[in-house]
Amino acid sequence: MSAIRIPGFRFAGVSAGIKKTGKPDVALLVSSALAAAAGVFTKNQVKAAPVCLSQERIRKGRLRGIVVNSGNANAATGARGLGDAQDMARVAALAAGCDEADFCVASTGVIGVPLPMDRVRDGIALAARELAEDGFERFALAILTTDRGPKIHVVKTRLCGREITLAGCAKGAGMIAPNMATTLAFVATDAALCTKWARALLREEANATFNAVSVDGDTSTNDSLFLLASGASAAPRVTCDDRAGKIFRSALREVLSSLSTMLVRDGEGATHVVRIHVAGAKTERDARAVAYRIAHSPLVKTAIFGADPNWGRILAAVGNAGVRIDPLRIDIDFDDVPVVRRGVFAGHGDTEARAHEVMTRPEYSIRVNLHAGRKASAFTTCDLTREYVSINADYRS
Amino acid sequence: MSAIRIPGFRFAGVSAGIKKTGKPDVALLVSSALAAAAGVFTKNQVKAAPVCLSQERIRKGRLRGIVVNSGNANAATGARGLGDAQDMARVAALAAGCDEADFCVASTGVIGVPLPMDRVRDGIALAARELAEDGFERFALAILTTDRGPKIHVVKTRLCGREITLAGCAKGAGMIAPNMATTLAFVATDAALCTKWARALLREEANATFNAVSVDGDTSTNDSLFLLASGASAAPRVTCDDRAGKIFRSALREVLSSLSTMLVRDGEGATHVVRIHVAGAKTERDARAVAYRIAHSPLVKTAIFGADPNWGRILAAVGNAGVRIDPLRIDIDFDDVPVVRRGVFAGHGDTEARAHEVMTRPEYSIRVNLHAGRKASAFTTCDLTREYVSINADYRS
Repeated sequence: MSAIRIPGFRFAGVSAGIKKTGKPDVALLVSSALAAAAGVFTKNQVKAAPVCLSQERIRKGRLRGIVVNSGNANAATGARGLGDAQDMARVAALAAGCDEADFCVASTGVIGVPLPMDRVRDGIALAARELAEDGFERFALAILTTDRGPKIHVVKTRLCGREITLAGCAKGAGMIAPNMATTLAFVATDAALCTKWARALLREEANATFNAVSVDGDTSTNDSLFLLASGASAAPRVTCDDRAGKIFRSALREVLSSLSTMLVRDGEGATHVVRIHVAGAKTERDARAVAYRIAHSPLVKTAIFGADPNWGRILAAVGNAGVRIDPLRIDIDFDDVPVVRRGVFAGHGDTEARAHEVMTRPEYSIRVNLHAGRKASAFTTCDLTREYVSINADYRS
Repeated sequence: MSAIRIPGFRFAGVSAGIKKTGKPDVALLVSSALAAAAGVFTKNQVKAAPVCLSQERIRKGRLRGIVVNSGNANAATGARGLGDAQDMARVAALAAGCDEADFCVASTGVIGVPLPMDRVRDGIALAARELAEDGFERFALAILTTDRGPKIHVVKTRLCGREITLAGCAKGAGMIAPNMATTLAFVATDAALCTKWARALLREEANATFNAVSVDGDTSTNDSLFLLASGASAAPRVTCDDRAGKIFRSALREVLSSLSTMLVRDGEGATHVVRIHVAGAKTERDARAVAYRIAHSPLVKTAIFGADPNWGRILAAVGNAGVRIDPLRIDIDFDDVPVVRRGVFAGHGDTEARAHEVMTRPEYSIRVNLHAGRKASAFTTCDLTREYVSINADYRS
């Protein structure tokens, strides 16, 4: 396969010695001109320094680049941390020949420990020298922490007859990693986008994808998702949900959906990926609340691990979602096996065995219909395993 | 120790063969006259039939008795389940010589399976014959499911110079047990109580105790807490928070606090019981939301299991509580070891080791001060262990 290239961008990923393992830990993305930019950041009020800085800088909707380090989250590091994040942006911008204010920063890794700034600065200088049009895969490697491997998804499509590319990469194994950790994701495209529309688009599509997956429900201090559009393709600028806008939205959804599912699949200790579909809700908010509750119930997540079609736990989770429901209307299916109809077990002799068989699959769906309206929502989750407990109880010892 | 007696009450606990193990599974509590009664029930909208029935019947504030079965929750059993719950009350009332409308019902155990009513009826008849003033311990045994043992707490105190007794018992190992399960709790007293006051009292004290403990955050379809006051003591009737009212409140708090802590201690797979104290909040609601979030974070709960003083996870949980906070004001202590001051690590060389030592204790406190106000709240939680996962993933296989 030929290297991934997104016209208008250069990338680098290098080892700076922030990680004890010597693995790549500084990544750089630079656009040859100001790119339209949008970001979605953690809702956690304890925000890492790079998040505070990037949230502020991305407001104007134009960026030249992003500098990333892995192995240290620069979180809970006080005023010094904020100064370090600013320094990272300054050094990167200088090395890439850009204005400092046009650079964002992202960090992931251990919390509460100051960045080793000498190494970080040297790493950024090295990365700037190695910037290349075919550097996307190296960038994607340098943002990882406990991930089993890089997470990349590329879509090529046509807008008004002109080819465009969207390339996305992400990191995250659960919402966690050394000492807590993070989801970071970056999407670069050569399409030309109106910033205002790109902002709304990214927020909406993030809600449907990254904000609808969960390993353990803990949101980190560093979660960041960036979209940068260089406009280097020949396609006209997309400004709204017209025909071209719909095509771009669909391509972005594919990238984000694929990356976010990879996060769950790589979830710490996960052995099953389950899509929770909730239909028949009065409002989309109701549907989402029910899906969220099922996806986060430890009892449901352990039953998924044990491949136990324990529909009582799902029913109880539905009843706990804070949404007005009629228990005697609820239907539950495991893939194509109907198990509950009107709130009671609706199976025959072999229903449990068939539902159990579904649950031995690595990926499957649990479908809940509330029969209270027409709205639907979905959430992707994974199982809660002994391995998850081991990873998170033992990793610092 | 002499048997527990509460003047005005008789109790029984017998084996009816609902449980395959042959352990006691039908319990009966009868007051010799109408007792003042209050109840607190599950907020889950999927309510078991006995909860629907009891919630309705306790409204008038007077009861003669409660019939309980363990081994089957009579939940998600549709119209048939409701009929069965009514039948249980009818049979019990008839056998005890009371009015059917003065009887409540509680059930716990497997969900989605109809009650074996022949056995239940025979069991109730047997229990009625065995009603005795010294039957409290047998009652407390017959309500258990996966519990390691009975949970009983008795307080004797004086109101206006007259001795009164409060005897409480509970069941629950986590919020869970065969196929999902439940917390049931019963407090009987010979004090005389004004029903209206008793109702408010029970709700408030349940919020501070049973509603402030958690094993896994899942609320069952059957959770029920009953308070019955026979008025058989010579103490005058308590109607408000006057001097006698405060003494009674304090005694009830002791009973409920002790029983609810026993639930956590007996939590499935639990190896540590941790009290989360949150102080310095603007409102009590804020304090509770922060304590709740810390107590339910899988990352915090696995760190407790691993005795890892991972303060970053606690800080992140605080930031996720949906409460406006200033991260740079937060203090965190493990028992007497200060670890975080103003949002950053405040320790010295041996701080981590000392905090780790605290976390090897079976019970300890984590104290968080938000420095945003004067309100406080507390929550009791346990760790998330490999054993918890094993119990809940494997128990049906």
